[in-house]
Amino acid sequence: MSELAWHRYGKAAIRLVKIERGGGADRVVDLTIDVQLEGDFDAVYAGDNRHCIATDTMKNTVYALAREGPIESAEAFAGRVAAHFAREPVVSTVKVRTVEQPWGPIHPHAFVLGAERWTTSVTQNAAVAAVTSGVTNLVAMKTADSAFSGFPRDRYTTLPETEDRLFVTAITAEWVHRAGTADFGARDRIRTALLQRFAEHKSHSVQHTLAAMGAAALGAAPTVDAITLTLPNRHHLLVDLAPFGLDNPNEIFVATDAPYGLIEATIRR
Amino acid sequence: MSELAWHRYGKAAIRLVKIERGGGADRVVDLTIDVQLEGDFDAVYAGDNRHCIATDTMKNTVYALAREGPIESAEAFAGRVAAHFAREPVVSTVKVRTVEQPWGPIHPHAFVLGAERWTTSVTQNAAVAAVTSGVTNLVAMKTADSAFSGFPRDRYTTLPETEDRLFVTAITAEWVHRAGTADFGARDRIRTALLQRFAEHKSHSVQHTLAAMGAAALGAAPTVDAITLTLPNRHHLLVDLAPFGLDNPNEIFVATDAPYGLIEATIRR
Amino acid sequence: MSELAWHRYGKAAIRLVKIERGGGADRVVDLTIDVQLEGDFDAVYAGDNRHCIATDTMKNTVYALAREGPIESAEAFAGRVAAHFAREPVVSTVKVRTVEQPWGPIHPHAFVLGAERWTTSVTQNAAVAAVTSGVTNLVAMKTADSAFSGFPRDRYTTLPETEDRLFVTAITAEWVHRAGTADFGARDRIRTALLQRFAEHKSHSVQHTLAAMGAAALGAAPTVDAITLTLPNRHHLLVDLAPFGLDNPNEIFVATDAPYGLIEATIRR
Amino acid sequence: MSELAWHRYGKAAIRLVKIERGGGADRVVDLTIDVQLEGDFDAVYAGDNRHCIATDTMKNTVYALAREGPIESAEAFAGRVAAHFAREPVVSTVKVRTVEQPWGPIHPHAFVLGAERWTTSVTQNAAVAAVTSGVTNLVAMKTADSAFSGFPRDRYTTLPETEDRLFVTAITAEWVHRAGTADFGARDRIRTALLQRFAEHKSHSVQHTLAAMGAAALGAAPTVDAITLTLPNRHHLLVDLAPFGLDNPNEIFVATDAPYGLIEATIRR
Repeated sequence: MSELAWHRYGKAAIRLVKIERGGGADRVVDLTIDVQLEGDFDAVYAGDNRHCIATDTMKNTVYALAREGPIESAEAFAGRVAAHFAREPVVSTVKVRTVEQPWGPIHPHAFVLGAERWTTSVTQNAAVAAVTSGVTNLVAMKTADSAFSGFPRDRYTTLPETEDRLFVTAITAEWVHRAGTADFGARDRIRTALLQRFAEHKSHSVQHTLAAMGAAALGAAPTVDAITLTLPNRHHLLVDLAPFGLDNPNEIFVATDAPYGLIEATIRR
Repeated sequence: MSELAWHRYGKAAIRLVKIERGGGADRVVDLTIDVQLEGDFDAVYAGDNRHCIATDTMKNTVYALAREGPIESAEAFAGRVAAHFAREPVVSTVKVRTVEQPWGPIHPHAFVLGAERWTTSVTQNAAVAAVTSGVTNLVAMKTADSAFSGFPRDRYTTLPETEDRLFVTAITAEWVHRAGTADFGARDRIRTALLQRFAEHKSHSVQHTLAAMGAAALGAAPTVDAITLTLPNRHHLLVDLAPFGLDNPNEIFVATDAPYGLIEATIRR
Repeated sequence: MSELAWHRYGKAAIRLVKIERGGGADRVVDLTIDVQLEGDFDAVYAGDNRHCIATDTMKNTVYALAREGPIESAEAFAGRVAAHFAREPVVSTVKVRTVEQPWGPIHPHAFVLGAERWTTSVTQNAAVAAVTSGVTNLVAMKTADSAFSGFPRDRYTTLPETEDRLFVTAITAEWVHRAGTADFGARDRIRTALLQRFAEHKSHSVQHTLAAMGAAALGAAPTVDAITLTLPNRHHLLVDLAPFGLDNPNEIFVATDAPYGLIEATIRR
Repeated sequence: MSELAWHRYGKAAIRLVKIERGGGADRVVDLTIDVQLEGDFDAVYAGDNRHCIATDTMKNTVYALAREGPIESAEAFAGRVAAHFAREPVVSTVKVRTVEQPWGPIHPHAFVLGAERWTTSVTQNAAVAAVTSGVTNLVAMKTADSAFSGFPRDRYTTLPETEDRLFVTAITAEWVHRAGTADFGARDRIRTALLQRFAEHKSHSVQHTLAAMGAAALGAAPTVDAITLTLPNRHHLLVDLAPFGLDNPNEIFVATDAPYGLIEATIRR
């Protein structure tokens, strides 16, 4: 005998592009959207589809809601989608996540895409919605003021101490909006604070800089109560040029993909 | 003022290949390993590295432990790595995850790699370890006995009912070993049970087949107490050939990547 | 002043899945198809679309042709598509390339997908068609009989000589069918010959084994006149365990992605 | 009997990062480099390595040459690497290709990485070197002035004519420097010319805009004699909202990955 212990379903990777026209210049909203439902769907797992909202309907709903009103922000739109499905009787929780491709204008009707992505999630339970915002794939390098020394040494430790290494990371940050607040414009301020602290910090470790970046981000957004930072350490190793009769005064590096350090923490107010 | 609310760090994507030689034929163990530590590392975030085990040391340790004894299974090896780090005074929890590339022998000393991957995770707290095993990227197609009908219709529903669609998915399964058991050979039996039930099931929905597959898997592994299945629905859409004066008797499909349905559930005994 | 020196256009990544039903068991044909046209399309570049066959029409044509007759092989189908477009007055050359995902049957109506892909290209000029077939992503490892020594040493050489290394590669092979022949079943025999020679060869270098594999493939397919092999050398480096007081008798390796050796050659009869 | 008809080998994906220090601000040079050799290497394929320059030596050489002098440009450095290997007696042709990750400064010692990549190739035969430069993954969207109509219609044509579609592409451009010239700073001017023409063009087709972009690029770089543009047409399809009682005045689109149009041409002076 077996039973359902947990379940969730939905549509992932709904690719919505909306051109907000009017005024002199267009605005592009480019979102990849996941909709996930939890609730009393047990009968579906026994073959009864009477309450199984088709994931195709979820997709259609996203496109229709995008047309039925303006998209002021990904957060607001994700909230609108979540609220729609939360009204279904069998649904207990809706989670809507979006990844935004931000297009930079180069002309009133032309745009270029960067590497960075912006994220949002809305989790809606009955009347309450929890909203997060974030950035991801913000790849940054620091060529000075990055040390790593004083760490413990055991029989498996070979890493030399360094006062001056390259620090390369792909910043992923996700922050929680205090209930009832909607400071979705905070992304720009948080992004600036993260990068500025990253650039200026006298780093003793990735962890040390992560904590400073998190504190700076909270300082830039008064209604954000917590921020989670995920910082892979994309190691750039000093190449040993001694076999060729050359020194390497912190100048020539090999960039490596694997393995990588991975540092994650949540900083709260 | 801000404070650390949660933190974790480690080394990801450690690429270990061990050739177990001896006897007539070699055995390849090919693992990609993540090691993550939680514990009293708060001082590190303030710039004090005295307790910051270098992630480079984690990598070295993995290679040394791989040499110091045989690797009977990914689960056993992950457990050995986890136990090593759990002995560090500041560590409270170690999580070790592995992804195995299974190489199929074609000769005593030659092997071919397939698409499927095998996963393991060990979470070690003090003396207790929780062990899971899994498979991922097991891509399967069912060309008969897959219906989807009887679902609710609202103003956003356009999907026609069907009694005969293609069902294409990339199976990810992860199961929990009952504490104190170590039936790591269950992977083959679970894999066979999942595929056989997938093939034979009269499917009313992905959910319906997921539940049947989960029950079959539990039947094949008496000391596994729960299995989580993640089944993306890789939609294959019937092409409308009517504009060309042709019918399409469930024969010509366009395979799509996005969007996709995503069905997840845990089945327990 | 500027002028058109060369141009080509078409539709890429047309995803066609055809289920050949009838008899007891289904057969899956899963192709990703590119269609490229060359010809007198200069006016299109000046803004005149009167001869610009829409790439959307190319896609529709592929689906319609797939329905209008059986697909005996990817080569035959690619030839049918190429011949269709070669009849257009402004077209001088059609190139059709396909990548096949071979699904392995596990049941009359269920299938599992492997890692390997099968390729085909047909280049049609007026009445003549050149046909190639191939395999790609056939990832293989050899754990014995692989040496690399006797190579020249200069001031930049640090690689030690070895009589026993791991040899890991992802085989890509493409072979040319003699005009007028159609031995498309040769893929299985060529694939077997490539792997068997790879497994048994006393390798002095990737090049050495490549030549032996190419000769074996030609031996297995009398109407194939040439085969091009592309063999990346996916380096697996012996880990230095001496700092930990351990030896490493060719047993513990780190698999690396970059950089990699890349060896390419065409062997002809 | 079989023989070698063609062969080439080398090292791919050499990951070099050089920090040019000094002055107030650092400069980052981040290159992924391929070195490929052709020449009299036939004996290697028979198992004789006396002339087989190890690909590991190629990698070492790249790092040493990077240290031995400044890297003024990727083109100049690729030329230096090519010239080094062209001096080897058995080598007839050296091809060096680089992909540059351009890091944008945000601080004298901190940088952020964008999506765009810069490419270079140098092909060296005896004393003559052919040099190309390029950009890739420059993803651009045009929300006005993009039509596609007047194309031929046959029984397989269903695409409606449109005077106003989204035009989304990932620009790849590669241009040839006239022998003896070295205007490697042209990349900025060419990039600007390509984007400006893309933005302002009254497009009748991708081909039409490609030709205009190519002409603009040549206008911006007097010593560039030819430019090849590769423009995938990343289709953004208008969503049919009529089933939901909604219109769609060119506003709501689904972004698709496959299939895609692919337009390639070389424009010369």
